[in-house]
Amino acid sequence: MEEQLEHKYSIIGGGITAPKGFKASGLTAGIKKNGKKDLALIYSEVVANSAGVFTTNKVKAAPLCITMENLEDGKAQAAIVNSGNANACTGERGYLDALETVKTTAEALGIKDKDVMVSSTGVIGVQLPVNKVIDAIPTAVKSLSLEGNKDAAEAIMTTDTFMKEVAVQFQIGEQTVSIGAMAKGSGMIHPNMATMLGFVTTDVNIEQKALHQALKYAVNRSFNMITVDGDTSTNDMVVVMANGLSGNQDISLGSENYYLFREALAFTCTYLAKEIARDGEGATKLLEVVVENAPTEEDAKKAALAVAKSSLVKTAIFGEDANWGRIIAAVGYSGAEFQPNLVDIFLGSEKMAEKGCGLEFDEAKAKKILEEKYVTIRVDLNSGNHMATAWGCDLSYEYVKINADYRT
Amino acid sequence: MEEQLEHKYSIIGGGITAPKGFKASGLTAGIKKNGKKDLALIYSEVVANSAGVFTTNKVKAAPLCITMENLEDGKAQAAIVNSGNANACTGERGYLDALETVKTTAEALGIKDKDVMVSSTGVIGVQLPVNKVIDAIPTAVKSLSLEGNKDAAEAIMTTDTFMKEVAVQFQIGEQTVSIGAMAKGSGMIHPNMATMLGFVTTDVNIEQKALHQALKYAVNRSFNMITVDGDTSTNDMVVVMANGLSGNQDISLGSENYYLFREALAFTCTYLAKEIARDGEGATKLLEVVVENAPTEEDAKKAALAVAKSSLVKTAIFGEDANWGRIIAAVGYSGAEFQPNLVDIFLGSEKMAEKGCGLEFDEAKAKKILEEKYVTIRVDLNSGNHMATAWGCDLSYEYVKINADYRT
Repeated sequence: MEEQLEHKYSIIGGGITAPKGFKASGLTAGIKKNGKKDLALIYSEVVANSAGVFTTNKVKAAPLCITMENLEDGKAQAAIVNSGNANACTGERGYLDALETVKTTAEALGIKDKDVMVSSTGVIGVQLPVNKVIDAIPTAVKSLSLEGNKDAAEAIMTTDTFMKEVAVQFQIGEQTVSIGAMAKGSGMIHPNMATMLGFVTTDVNIEQKALHQALKYAVNRSFNMITVDGDTSTNDMVVVMANGLSGNQDISLGSENYYLFREALAFTCTYLAKEIARDGEGATKLLEVVVENAPTEEDAKKAALAVAKSSLVKTAIFGEDANWGRIIAAVGYSGAEFQPNLVDIFLGSEKMAEKGCGLEFDEAKAKKILEEKYVTIRVDLNSGNHMATAWGCDLSYEYVKINADYRT
Repeated sequence: MEEQLEHKYSIIGGGITAPKGFKASGLTAGIKKNGKKDLALIYSEVVANSAGVFTTNKVKAAPLCITMENLEDGKAQAAIVNSGNANACTGERGYLDALETVKTTAEALGIKDKDVMVSSTGVIGVQLPVNKVIDAIPTAVKSLSLEGNKDAAEAIMTTDTFMKEVAVQFQIGEQTVSIGAMAKGSGMIHPNMATMLGFVTTDVNIEQKALHQALKYAVNRSFNMITVDGDTSTNDMVVVMANGLSGNQDISLGSENYYLFREALAFTCTYLAKEIARDGEGATKLLEVVVENAPTEEDAKKAALAVAKSSLVKTAIFGEDANWGRIIAAVGYSGAEFQPNLVDIFLGSEKMAEKGCGLEFDEAKAKKILEEKYVTIRVDLNSGNHMATAWGCDLSYEYVKINADYRT
């Protein structure tokens, strides 16, 4: 059942509130100095099977730790998210602040503490102005609506220049089901970056274990191909709530409908991952790196990520310079297994190198490819039959500017 | 015998020609478009015990492969180096070009082919204009002199803004001996970077095996703490020639004089490594990251390098923003073993975080520290008794500019 299934997705409006039974809100609690929205709430009418994947950073923010604990039973009904402050490296007080946020949200919604997930993004090492959060929660609850998706997506933004949301509709048997999602982040689309957060809602009826596996599969092929696995911020997390309100027959791990759902979830996550890459800090171009014919999928991933995150490749793309030598050098240090003298490299449709050796290529044509907003690099390792795709962006003056004085 | 030995080094003039019996030259062969010097030659009057350490990149430049072969017998008498073209990813022709360069140099010097090392740095994937090199070799040989060190150091530069050389004098028993060295590179002082080359000469009499071990020790604590081990360019190499002309008693591995020599070599390499960091592309500040009290030296190295190469830390230093949260986040994903709630972080003398938690610090004082040209970050893991130091630089607008159109 691992084969690619044929199916179609309709992209619909509504983001995280597109699936049945989900409401959302987003408002200004006053954490951000600039007065922009900074508190988001997502709520499901009924308790939902839920799962999360979390940063592998040894330094974990307080809210992340609490969400991990609260998800131990595989259930959740709400998520409260603030931007403007990461509540990371804030010690005991930070932990208590996150706990109080959960408790206040649960009380205002009339649900269990254990069913509230909490998340923060923003500056590290500064105490959360928790009173502002607490004071704003009643309004966040009152504002919950079927049209709150855009306010919520806006309220989780930090250096993002546009909000990121999507919703997808598809069939499971007789039922029309949907998956909604919103995301933010992550700085330069690179390891050691600002926080990446993703919130997924669905009305699909699916066993918790199957939901968790599907989420891991989807994240590994989407968000983890823009923010290197193991190289994440203190606050990164992606969570999914499946409330089952579409009434489809319960999906169990390994069933045909499981793979159908898993692919739809991967499609949704990939859509947002590319949106994040396109909105990389200071980015002027979206970069797609496809590595083909690798000995293993792991090799393909390593090579694709190394190219997508190479500062030298990224600056060359920004400068519209067809410097393919930097691409093969990145593949060379990626740790992927391959034979250097078998590698072909393509920039868009233009072949730059063959069997590891430079070709005379059409500079004008290469320049034209690089002038586009969507640049594709394809590396054919000719050493197996596995492939992977990574996404990134160029590295511009603007990136330096944004990050030189983020905190102050 | 592994303990730190007490001794002093005098820094003297003369660079690579300071040790007895070495001559050098540097001239314009016409490889670089801008007419600057691009061919360097180093020559020892007698065959020297020699050793090298080379890139771990799977893609290795042709000259590097030939130098590795020629060093198999642990002997060399000359090194010929061109800048402006890396002769990497140039296939069979590139290999033959590097071979011809070696052969022509050996003939002109009247020495064996096997005793010539060859090295290239510059753009990848473009054929070397070998005839320009061949034509210039006789002049390079004729120009060899005791004062050729600066010309040679200049001729190996690419995006370097100043030449990097040093010579150190010290005593081994009755003998006054010296070590000279020159280096170039490496771009952003970061993995996946432009080439780093180092050439070390010494008149010390030392067994080849001991020389090789000492070089590995010195490089691991110097050049590899600016260019991450395993994450190197196609052309990186550091070679050492020890011609024995100072007449000291032969140094064997593990002897007291071995440790004396090893520390002097490490001092020399660290001096140049810091020069390279200071001259990082677009750098305005030298960044020193000291990680203390780690469980193992490996943990300390991982943590120090992760901080020194973090784009977010580097841009914050450029922006003179005391964003210590990025420092602990980098330590967190470095792979080093530690307890987040034990970490103290210092910026210069100012303590920013204690037990993993932010302190109220003096913003004005932090700003003053960041305005300096030499910024020190100290991370105390309080989890052991090992330490390591890494060097880097800030990430500026100028870096992006340099790399956006390097090739064209």
